[in-house]
Amino acid sequence: MRVLVSGGAGYIGSHTVIRLVEAGHDVVVVDDFSNAKPTVVGRLEALTGRPIPVHAIDLTDTDKTEHLFAHEQIDAVIHFAGFKAVGESVAKPLAYYQNNLDSTFSLLRAMDRHDVRTLVFSSSATVYGAEPELPMTEDLPTSATNPYGWTKVMIEQILSDVAASDDRWRIAALRYFNPVGAHASGDIGEDPSGIPNNLMPFVAQVAVGRREQLSVFGDDYDTVDGTGVRDYIHVDDLAAGHVAALDTVGSRAEPMSVWNLGTGQGVSVLQVIKAFERASGRPIPYEIAPRRAGDIAASYADPARANADLGWRATKTIDDMCADTWRWQSKNPNGYPDA
Amino acid sequence: MRVLVSGGAGYIGSHTVIRLVEAGHDVVVVDDFSNAKPTVVGRLEALTGRPIPVHAIDLTDTDKTEHLFAHEQIDAVIHFAGFKAVGESVAKPLAYYQNNLDSTFSLLRAMDRHDVRTLVFSSSATVYGAEPELPMTEDLPTSATNPYGWTKVMIEQILSDVAASDDRWRIAALRYFNPVGAHASGDIGEDPSGIPNNLMPFVAQVAVGRREQLSVFGDDYDTVDGTGVRDYIHVDDLAAGHVAALDTVGSRAEPMSVWNLGTGQGVSVLQVIKAFERASGRPIPYEIAPRRAGDIAASYADPARANADLGWRATKTIDDMCADTWRWQSKNPNGYPDA
Repeated sequence: MRVLVSGGAGYIGSHTVIRLVEAGHDVVVVDDFSNAKPTVVGRLEALTGRPIPVHAIDLTDTDKTEHLFAHEQIDAVIHFAGFKAVGESVAKPLAYYQNNLDSTFSLLRAMDRHDVRTLVFSSSATVYGAEPELPMTEDLPTSATNPYGWTKVMIEQILSDVAASDDRWRIAALRYFNPVGAHASGDIGEDPSGIPNNLMPFVAQVAVGRREQLSVFGDDYDTVDGTGVRDYIHVDDLAAGHVAALDTVGSRAEPMSVWNLGTGQGVSVLQVIKAFERASGRPIPYEIAPRRAGDIAASYADPARANADLGWRATKTIDDMCADTWRWQSKNPNGYPDA
Repeated sequence: MRVLVSGGAGYIGSHTVIRLVEAGHDVVVVDDFSNAKPTVVGRLEALTGRPIPVHAIDLTDTDKTEHLFAHEQIDAVIHFAGFKAVGESVAKPLAYYQNNLDSTFSLLRAMDRHDVRTLVFSSSATVYGAEPELPMTEDLPTSATNPYGWTKVMIEQILSDVAASDDRWRIAALRYFNPVGAHASGDIGEDPSGIPNNLMPFVAQVAVGRREQLSVFGDDYDTVDGTGVRDYIHVDDLAAGHVAALDTVGSRAEPMSVWNLGTGQGVSVLQVIKAFERASGRPIPYEIAPRRAGDIAASYADPARANADLGWRATKTIDDMCADTWRWQSKNPNGYPDA
């Protein structure tokens, strides 16, 4: 298949591009580079040995999106593009809703006009809301605690209604747990702009000397050691899950499918720190800070449905994740170069 | 205040225009006339004795919306505009999501740019979802059973996040129960296009001879007589509720308020039929038909919060509602003229 990857220059998108090419698919990337560096593309081409066509457009521009579909022969879409910073979404909710929903509307319209009705959407475990049952199964009710999360909840609902309205659609929403790690080469990885919001890139920046110490937000949760527990999943496992979903969704009886992509294992903040110290051989100084508003004690998937339906399973351990993150971080201490 | 009324040529919008003028406000109408006749405006001008400025634009057109705010001095907005046919929303979900959300985004952006941050939004009791507790209070969880309803749920969430992000906003979402009736003059009323989806206009069209008989969907619900129970509210009471919300919301401590607008009284389908027979002096032939998918047995408001906060109360009875509907229907058997 010739697969359009929106947000294909981003963290998860870029790793999925590699897995798609390895699986024999052709890839076209669309990215507005508002939160990704164009230099990613050269690295993808070097790693895959293929030219990667790139359209540097904003999907909310309906004319440009239409033009893209008119000029590229697309068979399916994996839709990663979207604003994703939780804190910024609270400060600028309208920008988040407008960008994430309008880009999806524009994409769906162009797909429908050009008879492309196979879509894999980048959702998130954040749709399980503030007080989820554990482990999280796909049938739990959805909600959110911030506008970023609500855009995921809303887009899932919209996709479900679109799929129900026309049986030619085959749509999958993939609910990611906590993606970390990097490509085994160390040439592709997570390159957050500004202060990282997530634990692993922050730890990696401490290890490499870009930041002095880590704040651990809360050590009095009801967990194994009091710190927050998350289901970290290696981004390469996650990328493989996208390829599996893409290869499966077209032959499903149901027009809309939802799959958790996680390991099913909870790992605490202190366990991540210890694993990263082992992987990097460096100490990770940290201090205990107050809990952050909106954080939950523990989050981990029940990945049984994806395991069964997709023949997919996350295989990499927290030590693999830290080793690959460290390789990327030490090879690229300041992330991707500008040019 | 100079109040922009979006969808001001529609059923509830037009009645609210009259109440706003009566309360001493200036009114500017914006309507794309996709589901309203321009002849409404002449009647509003005749009834109010005022010229009513009208902008015949689609709010999803951001340039035209910006131009409107640049050229009219607006102090506050009442936002009725939106697609509203439940069945059509199931068939064309993307059109519904795109129209109802994008028009709201465009409006909010223009308001923010022009320092207009007082907004009353037209929501619906449909946000209480498939299995609400009765009576419905504003604190119940929200959900929906169709894309139209989901647009209301989503817009409420978006407004709540916008209000939380900037304390200069004062936003009210009004959850209507079942608006019926017409202006006492009989010159303004509900003029649905095609086959009416709602009970009262269907009954009125049977009474006036446009349709042969009514189908009553289900007579085996757990209600007073087995037929569905709803909280019918006279559109003029509803219009007064909008004026009260507009006059109140600016002085609220909370940036976002949600109020039910209903009577608190449930009335069954058979009770509506009997009341309409009394009001019109005509028989309403009906047959019992199977339940409709998605219909609930009973729906009625707890209007205590609106009563207390707004000093507002619905005063008109089901007999008033039927008498006014009948006056409108018999004076205008085919609705508004085209020109």
